[in-house]
Amino acid sequence: MGTLSSPTEAVDLSHHINKRSKARHPSPLKDIIKFMNQDGMISLAGGSGAGNGELVALARRLTDRLHAPTYRYDCLLHPGNTNAWAKVVGLLCEEDDNIIVDEYVYPSAQALWIPMGIKAVPVDADAEGMQADKLEKMLATWDDGGRRGKRPHVVYIVPVGSNPTGLSISKRRRQALYEVCVKYDMIIVEDDPYYCLQYPPYNPKAADATVDSTAAPLPTDEFVASLIPSFLSMDRQGRVIRLESFSKTLFPALRLGYFIANPVFIERLLRASEVETQDPSGLSQLFVLQLLRQWTIDGYIGWLQTLQSQYRQRRDWLLGAIAENFELMETDTGSSTSASKEYRACIRGSDGDVKPVFSFVDPTAGMFLWTKFDLRAVSRFSELSDKQDISDPEQTFADELWKAWCSELILVTPGSYYHPWQGPEFTATAARGAEAATCDFRLSFATPTKEQIELGQYVGFTLTL
Amino acid sequence: MGTLSSPTEAVDLSHHINKRSKARHPSPLKDIIKFMNQDGMISLAGGSGAGNGELVALARRLTDRLHAPTYRYDCLLHPGNTNAWAKVVGLLCEEDDNIIVDEYVYPSAQALWIPMGIKAVPVDADAEGMQADKLEKMLATWDDGGRRGKRPHVVYIVPVGSNPTGLSISKRRRQALYEVCVKYDMIIVEDDPYYCLQYPPYNPKAADATVDSTAAPLPTDEFVASLIPSFLSMDRQGRVIRLESFSKTLFPALRLGYFIANPVFIERLLRASEVETQDPSGLSQLFVLQLLRQWTIDGYIGWLQTLQSQYRQRRDWLLGAIAENFELMETDTGSSTSASKEYRACIRGSDGDVKPVFSFVDPTAGMFLWTKFDLRAVSRFSELSDKQDISDPEQTFADELWKAWCSELILVTPGSYYHPWQGPEFTATAARGAEAATCDFRLSFATPTKEQIELGQYVGFTLTL
Repeated sequence: MGTLSSPTEAVDLSHHINKRSKARHPSPLKDIIKFMNQDGMISLAGGSGAGNGELVALARRLTDRLHAPTYRYDCLLHPGNTNAWAKVVGLLCEEDDNIIVDEYVYPSAQALWIPMGIKAVPVDADAEGMQADKLEKMLATWDDGGRRGKRPHVVYIVPVGSNPTGLSISKRRRQALYEVCVKYDMIIVEDDPYYCLQYPPYNPKAADATVDSTAAPLPTDEFVASLIPSFLSMDRQGRVIRLESFSKTLFPALRLGYFIANPVFIERLLRASEVETQDPSGLSQLFVLQLLRQWTIDGYIGWLQTLQSQYRQRRDWLLGAIAENFELMETDTGSSTSASKEYRACIRGSDGDVKPVFSFVDPTAGMFLWTKFDLRAVSRFSELSDKQDISDPEQTFADELWKAWCSELILVTPGSYYHPWQGPEFTATAARGAEAATCDFRLSFATPTKEQIELGQYVGFTLTL
Repeated sequence: MGTLSSPTEAVDLSHHINKRSKARHPSPLKDIIKFMNQDGMISLAGGSGAGNGELVALARRLTDRLHAPTYRYDCLLHPGNTNAWAKVVGLLCEEDDNIIVDEYVYPSAQALWIPMGIKAVPVDADAEGMQADKLEKMLATWDDGGRRGKRPHVVYIVPVGSNPTGLSISKRRRQALYEVCVKYDMIIVEDDPYYCLQYPPYNPKAADATVDSTAAPLPTDEFVASLIPSFLSMDRQGRVIRLESFSKTLFPALRLGYFIANPVFIERLLRASEVETQDPSGLSQLFVLQLLRQWTIDGYIGWLQTLQSQYRQRRDWLLGAIAENFELMETDTGSSTSASKEYRACIRGSDGDVKPVFSFVDPTAGMFLWTKFDLRAVSRFSELSDKQDISDPEQTFADELWKAWCSELILVTPGSYYHPWQGPEFTATAARGAEAATCDFRLSFATPTKEQIELGQYVGFTLTL
């Protein structure tokens, strides 16, 4: 990303900070830290919990390399993205707020704020991710304090290889979303642990090819240029809070990552960290610090490329196994710029008719495949739909199917886990406004072997026929 | 503690759980975990964040060994006592609550809840710790919803080697406090990282003796019998929430400890952990697990005894250095059972008169010495007191003294950092109800060397003369 021109200052966004967070005072113990490092000082004042400065400096260098922010930002260590998101909600949200989310949302993210009376406001996505025109229309027509309650001011988004949908938001869509957020004074929380796990689209013709994970990594600049630009990189006002994690790139349960945001938000997040968590585990900090020292930033980015090819390989195994059992038909998404193609997995009946079973968007990042099942021609679903005492036949069918897979020792995650919480009256398929005669499941290809994936596809998905 | 008789169930204390915590639902992702461990299951459902079961089992064994709780309790891992206390406040407290605390309180503990409008209600202590009769009187006369606001239902206490006062609550005082808490339906939060760092009182006659830290540890039962019984061990109803930490016994910044509490509270704390932090760092868990496996529980308790003797040595260095520079006079505390003696450090003037400079209670645990300075005969303090424009001469003098020590390269922690927050109108010395013509400083003997301690005493404290 070359040399930066002098960064601009973030605009004043302090009106987004909630009442409780505004009321925090620095711990007086922190005042004493500057004296501790004085030469020759005999300290009878005890220890301090300041984070590792070298690690923070490395996080800044990595940020400049990957995102080259154009405004003056700060970094702060945090103990994993779950806690980071909890702190951001603690920074920005009041009780009974509304938060803009993707069409589907990670359950722990919303389980945090449901007890606060906060509700999710999902925005529909296509293969390019959250739809900017739908977001704009919603904000333009929002009746503040009316039927839907308080006007939202926070967008929570997993923009690359989203958990659960596997979607990545395209560059032009991001630009459109960012402009909507500027227009309506929204804060964008970019929870992006899979950012460096972007890989090329699935190529059916080369499905059997083994990805060469020993290939030399690209030069850093070339690699960075191959990634979709982050919201942070587009941010000219300091309205993006980016959550980074080492857990998805080094190992799970490391519980170490960092915030990137404007200095006003970072200072408040630091105040919360002092009293809620202190620094992340010293062992985790030490491990990452030593690794980055030894590898250098470029070496770490090289490592990310190896990981990238491993996830690509796993995605190819899964989509290859689907292609073995189904006819894959590309859906015309009407978009020429979207890198991610949408497919229907079909079977051909004895009468030669093609019957769609499920559809999915090829994940070009991360570790998840989101499958939307088409129940229109499923006889069991018709049976359930005809029963008077079944209020949500889609969900009832999904539960039955999930249990049938379980009994065949195939475990997938029910789509219902990811339904945005819009209140108790909006949980059934129809009430949520979801497409009739569909249900969803999330498949993770992060851990199973090639053989497990193939067997899983064969045993599991043939059950749906 | 031998074989336990069958434990009783905790009484129902669920009315102490706050509204937000009651509204938490389990993350649906956790439902799936039981399927993941099924034999032969092919999981396309992704990972899980369940804590290490063996480590939790070891925490339970350690708990049985040290505290032998008589009711059916549970354990839950947490990422350090700062976060543990934040989660307990999140479990029990509403906005504008009042929390009972010691006469002085750790700043980060209250910086957490000051923004929630919560206030501290300090209870005076003597050499045996918080005074049960004063607690009872306060609760008996509390006008719920009146001038002082909501009736408190939580006592936060660091009962051994308290930070900052170094005080340990005696056994009989604990029994009295516990009965008051039963009578007034209080929850006791026992934040006890220094529990196993109890050591014998300072012996002026053997002050120069080096503590033999290579001595063989006592058998576990004998060691356990030498410790003041915890509030947990006395609890027959499940109203104690005990916070345990490995940071103070293995190394700082480990960010690993565990809650011990009744199963209803633990289940709610688990719900909060799922969405606020997930498990503690896997590296920290692994480190402690491997250590406990290798050492066994008895070996770990032996290690604690070594630590105990090291802190005792450091306490002896500090009190020995004070005895070098001052005449130590024992104060009659009127208590025959208190293990901790109170001393006045005095100087003898040229006229032969004995002038008290500061007083302290001998810390018989932990790493802190709390010094209360007597300013009655200090001419600079008299000067400040005579000035019309100085509203809090005690605090002004304390600030001057602290700065003078700093410029001599002696760093101690100002006592004002630990004043309980009772609201903006109760910050000055007189308004707080503190003793006139006194000010306090906390000395930590955890890190300085013997030479630093001696030099610190000489250079620093002679400044007060």
